Amino acid sequence: MVDVAVIGARGYLGRELLRWLLLHPKVEAIAPITSGETGKPYGDSVPAFRHRSDLVMAGPQAARDADVVFLATDGEEARKHAAGLPDAPLIVDLSRAHRHLGLDHQEGWTYGLSEFLPVPKGSRRIANPGCYPTATLIAAGPALKAGLATVGPLISDGKSGISGAGATPRGDLHYPEAHDAVRAYKVLGHDHLAEIRGAAARIEGKAATAPSARPVRFTPHLVPMNRGLLATVYLPVAADADAETVKAAYRQHYAGSPFVRNVPEPDTSHVRGSNYADVAVDVDSASGLLVARCAIDNLVKGGSGAAIQNMNLALGLAPTLGLDRVAGGP
Amino acid sequence: MVDVAVIGARGYLGRELLRWLLLHPKVEAIAPITSGETGKPYGDSVPAFRHRSDLVMAGPQAARDADVVFLATDGEEARKHAAGLPDAPLIVDLSRAHRHLGLDHQEGWTYGLSEFLPVPKGSRRIANPGCYPTATLIAAGPALKAGLATVGPLISDGKSGISGAGATPRGDLHYPEAHDAVRAYKVLGHDHLAEIRGAAARIEGKAATAPSARPVRFTPHLVPMNRGLLATVYLPVAADADAETVKAAYRQHYAGSPFVRNVPEPDTSHVRGSNYADVAVDVDSASGLLVARCAIDNLVKGGSGAAIQNMNLALGLAPTLGLDRVAGGP
Amino acid sequence: MVDVAVIGARGYLGRELLRWLLLHPKVEAIAPITSGETGKPYGDSVPAFRHRSDLVMAGPQAARDADVVFLATDGEEARKHAAGLPDAPLIVDLSRAHRHLGLDHQEGWTYGLSEFLPVPKGSRRIANPGCYPTATLIAAGPALKAGLATVGPLISDGKSGISGAGATPRGDLHYPEAHDAVRAYKVLGHDHLAEIRGAAARIEGKAATAPSARPVRFTPHLVPMNRGLLATVYLPVAADADAETVKAAYRQHYAGSPFVRNVPEPDTSHVRGSNYADVAVDVDSASGLLVARCAIDNLVKGGSGAAIQNMNLALGLAPTLGLDRVAGGP
Amino acid sequence: MVDVAVIGARGYLGRELLRWLLLHPKVEAIAPITSGETGKPYGDSVPAFRHRSDLVMAGPQAARDADVVFLATDGEEARKHAAGLPDAPLIVDLSRAHRHLGLDHQEGWTYGLSEFLPVPKGSRRIANPGCYPTATLIAAGPALKAGLATVGPLISDGKSGISGAGATPRGDLHYPEAHDAVRAYKVLGHDHLAEIRGAAARIEGKAATAPSARPVRFTPHLVPMNRGLLATVYLPVAADADAETVKAAYRQHYAGSPFVRNVPEPDTSHVRGSNYADVAVDVDSASGLLVARCAIDNLVKGGSGAAIQNMNLALGLAPTLGLDRVAGGP
Repeated sequence: MVDVAVIGARGYLGRELLRWLLLHPKVEAIAPITSGETGKPYGDSVPAFRHRSDLVMAGPQAARDADVVFLATDGEEARKHAAGLPDAPLIVDLSRAHRHLGLDHQEGWTYGLSEFLPVPKGSRRIANPGCYPTATLIAAGPALKAGLATVGPLISDGKSGISGAGATPRGDLHYPEAHDAVRAYKVLGHDHLAEIRGAAARIEGKAATAPSARPVRFTPHLVPMNRGLLATVYLPVAADADAETVKAAYRQHYAGSPFVRNVPEPDTSHVRGSNYADVAVDVDSASGLLVARCAIDNLVKGGSGAAIQNMNLALGLAPTLGLDRVAGGP
Repeated sequence: MVDVAVIGARGYLGRELLRWLLLHPKVEAIAPITSGETGKPYGDSVPAFRHRSDLVMAGPQAARDADVVFLATDGEEARKHAAGLPDAPLIVDLSRAHRHLGLDHQEGWTYGLSEFLPVPKGSRRIANPGCYPTATLIAAGPALKAGLATVGPLISDGKSGISGAGATPRGDLHYPEAHDAVRAYKVLGHDHLAEIRGAAARIEGKAATAPSARPVRFTPHLVPMNRGLLATVYLPVAADADAETVKAAYRQHYAGSPFVRNVPEPDTSHVRGSNYADVAVDVDSASGLLVARCAIDNLVKGGSGAAIQNMNLALGLAPTLGLDRVAGGP
Repeated sequence: MVDVAVIGARGYLGRELLRWLLLHPKVEAIAPITSGETGKPYGDSVPAFRHRSDLVMAGPQAARDADVVFLATDGEEARKHAAGLPDAPLIVDLSRAHRHLGLDHQEGWTYGLSEFLPVPKGSRRIANPGCYPTATLIAAGPALKAGLATVGPLISDGKSGISGAGATPRGDLHYPEAHDAVRAYKVLGHDHLAEIRGAAARIEGKAATAPSARPVRFTPHLVPMNRGLLATVYLPVAADADAETVKAAYRQHYAGSPFVRNVPEPDTSHVRGSNYADVAVDVDSASGLLVARCAIDNLVKGGSGAAIQNMNLALGLAPTLGLDRVAGGP
Repeated sequence: MVDVAVIGARGYLGRELLRWLLLHPKVEAIAPITSGETGKPYGDSVPAFRHRSDLVMAGPQAARDADVVFLATDGEEARKHAAGLPDAPLIVDLSRAHRHLGLDHQEGWTYGLSEFLPVPKGSRRIANPGCYPTATLIAAGPALKAGLATVGPLISDGKSGISGAGATPRGDLHYPEAHDAVRAYKVLGHDHLAEIRGAAARIEGKAATAPSARPVRFTPHLVPMNRGLLATVYLPVAADADAETVKAAYRQHYAGSPFVRNVPEPDTSHVRGSNYADVAVDVDSASGLLVARCAIDNLVKGGSGAAIQNMNLALGLAPTLGLDRVAGGP
């Protein structure tokens, strides 16, 4: 049994971590931590938890005493917290702070994308992937790994529900402005781009920062729903790679991935509230492109669920422990 | 451990039953039943369940062999199925078919609203309440029971998400017609009205069909969301019943109800995906009305969750067994 | 031809005023005014107007020079602006600031609800009704006016789209918090309550502040859509008033109201983007209540459209001038 | 002044045509036609039009007598209707039936994309573009025309609101199934693909069916909103074409297009209910791709508005006549 702390417990990823951890059979005590709220019942901040009188905001010492610490803050906060923690606890950082270190195996950090770059048992510092990279890499990974992609950029066109933008109110996310609206954002310079490029390079067998790493074009979009993320990925495909060859590579690669389902039509509503990733791949011979789609819940497989899956692996538990729940639609 | 069958497994209530039953610690085998689909993997019909290869549509014999049978069909179908089943299995009927019998304790049926009319251990035929009656009665019940309401109608103004209208496509529920639209429906003659009147009468200590039963005005509305139901209830309040008296009656009554939370502002998003009912009560002295609000998830506390709670009570299990999950927002 | 100024041009009511005024055949020049933005192209603030290079934020002098000034600010601002303007321009105040004066015909203000309390030609100071009062009074008005309601409170249960809460971001209106959520708010003490009571009293032939004014119970709710407001109104009905009598009173009263449609099922999507109000009335003899429903677009008939209708009346123009547009669904 | 007929008047494009035609200063009489409903008030079918007692469903003779006939049916119906009409009326076909003929100038048909392939005055048979092609070509067109794209496929990733799927109820468009869901569809074989390829070829100066036509990869997606379409387009860009060169080409090309706005961040909510197309272009030098986005209202610029614009051009009227309305948010 392990004691866990969640730093950044009031954000959407923090809340979702608590939901899942409360049901995890190996988790004993849970300390939610939000700066400045020590002693306050968690349910006073997040009304869905009102009946959980056992959840009370803890102070920073709880993180130092925990067996596992989840960092669900922004990157800057995560860096400070990680630096201040003792060696003992396993840290799973859901922010972007340590992903580049993790992709390069620097300073003890490991990037943990279970389907391609699983963390070894005994890992102590885990950088959890971003939501868009997760969906993009699950969509593109089997083709990259099997050498089915030829020279050319990986294009990822991502569509995310608005919870991905976080719990802080913003003018463009005021309900009347975001409802019934589709828009791209950060078309140049989203920080997930370098993460996708580095992780894709590693899946292709290169160093994360190899100059020969495949270029990546990444365009994120917000769509008017709360949860869910669909990545539509385009990759130049080898001329001799027909649809059957490609589909077989996907089926084969994901045969051992308990949370990936090969489906005909990925749909975010089919994975909402679950740790599943639904993937489909097609070959468009006229354009020479492979078209792969992956649907996830951005807060679960794209964040909290993947983080718990990483914890499970690091602790030597079954990867699916505490995570095997059916999606929650309609 | 019990074996269960769900007849009408493809509807929204049937799907939701399966979600919860899969996590119930006392449920061993689950037989989903939909006429004409015997032998088909359940996940082929309901994509969220694709990975559950253990769930295969069963034939009618599975219901006869089960320990517990949930009827999640329409009323007419439910009546036929109930009539055809042997005496042995516990039947929980989520349709309207047996509610009036249950309110009158006729033909072996018991109406099971756990907060006011809990089914006794050993019950074999349980009529599960409708979604609007559940929210209405949780909102009004403590006042009715404590005699705080004076002469006059109970008014329930209900707002339901669209999953409450079922899984069959309909012109008025085609996405572009239901999105961004609020409307009342069946303003005269919704079949939940008589159920509310009968159950309210029993809570006030009368027979369900007593001529003196309090008249009920019930107006259901559809609002553009999937899950969630808010009932706003108006009751004439005794002149000497001030806000504190009324609020105390609610706190006191619900002190023993594990799934009801007294909150300042009920909000359907705070209970979505959970079996909780959030309730608030106010006294509007200028109009002489008590105003009570109750928010539930129409598919859970308003259907499947309540049905499992009834099963737990009938089997002598803890009422919360398998049901204690935090709501799923955002 | 008239020159108009809109103070508070960036808010949702201000924007909507500009949309309609641009199409009004008697409006010549339009001066949008927002404090601190003089000289800025309006389309830089409100992207839907980017191509209207003729719209540039004006300074306060533009209001003093205008023939008609619309106040689309909050109440406090509106009071200041009204006090500072010369006598000449016609002022239509969309805020709550002058409604109580208008209901009492004090200080030159007139409350303008065209269907029951139309402003006379030549009016110079008009208080425009609130959105909830408009829908409530159109639903209840014919019964009140015809003396069909007996002793007892008027109950208005209102459901509004979120644009009604204004353009300023707020934690509870952050998209992920308001999406898929229904909730009541300000259950006690919403400032529209006194307006409804006062206007209903006048429709019943009493003074707005008469001690004998009918008590009002008003419960506003937010529902997850942008535009639209449905008021469901309950009134005690005289025992001899059957459905046909009541329906006839509604048909008769609204025969002369160009923007009210008697319909079987009011639905906010049928009036969205238009100045129409759809109304239906039923008699529920079991509870002794009349049930009336009115659907409007909260920004049009509930604000900007009604304001232009008031301007038309005050200027002696046809009430429908510039307003006769079909609703905009799907 | 012209008399117009709309065949297929009950569909979403038909309704939208009527909305705009009612405001068009050169349109005198409007005959809505839906098979089997002759003589029925149009407002009985489409409640938003209830007050327009002048609109009554007409029989087929009305189309033969009209000056302009809009075909807003599916392709098969449109082909039959076009074949049965006399030579006299101008026909604007909104279906896919005659687009390929129009792109090849066959059998008297002209494909009318006003920004690149405007119909000549006097045209009698106009094939109106599809919604996805419109947004895709407005996004890609200036680059294609100016020779800024190098060898390689044009990739269009389209996101459409659900009204684009039509008014006929369907299981996957039942509100609870489409709400909170994002999905691609017809990943291989959508009929808009060939239209995009043919029109792009013509913009690049080739025949629509030239073997050297640039290959097109087109992936349509449904997003949970009613109206709006965003196309995100990727094109290989010449190495010497920097961002400024490309942006200048867009500004220059659209200087003469009254309905295209160069904006920093296209957003479907900024064009909803209007005939505007908002476009932005960026150069992603790392991947060698130009990234262009275009936001339109799929029912207006993507259908009915473009059809009226085509009518205006064919009749020698100003292209903006009757179409210059501001978008309708929030």
